[in-house]
Amino acid sequence: MANPSLLILPGDGIGPEVMTEVRKVIDWFGTRGMTFDVSEALVGGAAYDAHGTPLTDETMEMAQNVDAVLLGAVGGPKYDNLDFSVKPERGLLRLRKEMDLYANLRPAQCFDALADFSSLKKNVVAGLDIMIIRELTSGVYFGEPRGIFTEGNERVGINTQRYTESEIARVARSAFELARKRDNRVCSMEKANVMESGVLWREVVQRIHDDEYPDVELSHMYADAGAMQLTRWPKQFDVIVTDNLFGDMLSDLAAMLTGSLGMLPSASLGLPMANGRPKALYEPVHGSAPDIAGTGKANPIACILSFAMALRYSFDAGAEADRVDAAVEKVLADGLRTADLLGEEGVEPVTTSQMGEAIVAAL
Amino acid sequence: MANPSLLILPGDGIGPEVMTEVRKVIDWFGTRGMTFDVSEALVGGAAYDAHGTPLTDETMEMAQNVDAVLLGAVGGPKYDNLDFSVKPERGLLRLRKEMDLYANLRPAQCFDALADFSSLKKNVVAGLDIMIIRELTSGVYFGEPRGIFTEGNERVGINTQRYTESEIARVARSAFELARKRDNRVCSMEKANVMESGVLWREVVQRIHDDEYPDVELSHMYADAGAMQLTRWPKQFDVIVTDNLFGDMLSDLAAMLTGSLGMLPSASLGLPMANGRPKALYEPVHGSAPDIAGTGKANPIACILSFAMALRYSFDAGAEADRVDAAVEKVLADGLRTADLLGEEGVEPVTTSQMGEAIVAAL
Ligand SMILES: CC(C)[C@H](C(=O)O)[C@@H](O)C(=O)O
Ligand SMILES: CC(C)[C@H](C(=O)O)[C@@H](O)C(=O)O
Repeated sequence: MANPSLLILPGDGIGPEVMTEVRKVIDWFGTRGMTFDVSEALVGGAAYDAHGTPLTDETMEMAQNVDAVLLGAVGGPKYDNLDFSVKPERGLLRLRKEMDLYANLRPAQCFDALADFSSLKKNVVAGLDIMIIRELTSGVYFGEPRGIFTEGNERVGINTQRYTESEIARVARSAFELARKRDNRVCSMEKANVMESGVLWREVVQRIHDDEYPDVELSHMYADAGAMQLTRWPKQFDVIVTDNLFGDMLSDLAAMLTGSLGMLPSASLGLPMANGRPKALYEPVHGSAPDIAGTGKANPIACILSFAMALRYSFDAGAEADRVDAAVEKVLADGLRTADLLGEEGVEPVTTSQMGEAIVAAL
Repeated sequence: MANPSLLILPGDGIGPEVMTEVRKVIDWFGTRGMTFDVSEALVGGAAYDAHGTPLTDETMEMAQNVDAVLLGAVGGPKYDNLDFSVKPERGLLRLRKEMDLYANLRPAQCFDALADFSSLKKNVVAGLDIMIIRELTSGVYFGEPRGIFTEGNERVGINTQRYTESEIARVARSAFELARKRDNRVCSMEKANVMESGVLWREVVQRIHDDEYPDVELSHMYADAGAMQLTRWPKQFDVIVTDNLFGDMLSDLAAMLTGSLGMLPSASLGLPMANGRPKALYEPVHGSAPDIAGTGKANPIACILSFAMALRYSFDAGAEADRVDAAVEKVLADGLRTADLLGEEGVEPVTTSQMGEAIVAAL
């Protein structure tokens, strides 16, 4: 049988340097008989600099044909004034859309060793473990019409929020499936009191629940109340399912609750391929952090844990994923901290690569 | 000269009972020579129950012709299954739209006596004082096309995000004007990396700044990063300006940071009327809280402070507004707590009306 294949897209800013550390973890698995066929390509600003587009057709084609894609981060102030159509983000959005990665899994977990880093009180976040499922291929991110048009003597900016029943149904199923493996509770968030797309969202989620997952506990919440409740007492939630734009904000908010953005991975999953594996892209929740790129201050853990999610969701290697998770917990318990995690008395930061190597050693 | 006029719309849930306390404050000003012509009408579910619509044309007409409207809250589970077009929220949205109340001012202030109630660490929120200006009459709340349509053999839910240059410009001006009376800093939030309406938003805010308010410090932030930064270190902000939907979420989030939702007022302002006063509606940030309606547990302070905002923004009565603010701080410093503010050792809650009367006494 062929080795499982991985496409690595380091991207911009700290993307390449955190990816270097992930490579060490991948190589470690190679020495233990689990070898990946790894290819690498450009995405985002890096691709724009080389090819004038944030994602070439060749790279898109490669992404469609591997078992999993691992992405670092895209974007940076250098590209702020590019035309909308070639902004770094368009590369990432094209990957999500053309691979049809409709279910974005964003765990917000608070690591015991790091609970003090949160701006929230320790009792509010210690032990936090929620999973946000964000719809990733539709909604206002992709709806047409969109653009800047002229009307009379002024311009108007337009985007379209748009959800079909089947788009809602499939991501709802992802959420219910995941809930069954966790605490069996799903909270769905929208603005059904203001938006008709939210009315349809609520109705379809409820129907999928009643018809197919009556054993899972389902509740509904308006997205603004959701933002409040996440801030007030996040542990009330198990799985949250929501649309692309609300998910963007709510998952970032949830990530920040944990106090350690540099620690949080994500998985974006689509339909099963011929080999039974879902189309998949894994990436850290943090951005490209151009201000610290190249300084050795980046935390590689979120990207390494994204690879662990790949082991779990793409390669049916739950035990190996647990092993990576445990190695990360060990180095944290040992007191290793990258520069984003400073503040404890007497702690000197380790560099990006020291952290990566410590994790490999802990494996 | 005629007395200034006020239309009171108590609405649903705890709306009527908190409004009863506001009436006591209004009456107190009456005994001091500042008399308001007060009328009252129904809105939301209460209006639906009586008239089959969440806002009658007569009430709409009254609202257009008073100096200020004071609203309690709308909505409740009783009305969850009503048709979208007659939901309680439609009454509120019609008021906002037809009165053209484009600038929604939502202060997020942390009261010293209450800093411990926040789920955030005390040093993160103590002394917090930010002002969110939310665009309130456009965007996805009102854009067309909207609705649930059939396409092929399934339904699709559609809403339209839509901003014209002039809609963005006028709310940007409101933000810059307010910033000049505060710490002179504005942060504008959108998703210009993903939405063209956000691209136009950013461009227009920047242009209004450069042409008319170059003395104010302006920054831009993506709305997801904004949610994170509000959670991480909210004191970095002075004035935040953002669109209707992002503003809905971000202002609720900011409100929750303070730990005392029952304390936060809001003002929604439109164009100046013939008498020079802006069209205006004032309402607490909290909702109708149907679960505690009628139990004496509601906190009337947010609604009383909304009346204080009316004194400040509609009636040029800054000194009187300060007096109400001071009375509220005094009763809090004295240790008075409604049921939403429990948790301190040995504190017994006061009822809604005890709190209202204590504030009047403190005046
Ligand atoms: C980079 C950007 C396009 C992206 C998004 O808005 O989806 C990011 O914020 C995210 O959450 O993955
Ligand atoms: C009640 C509802 C229509 C309203 C909104 O979404 O604007 C509320 O959440 C608010 O923020 O005032």
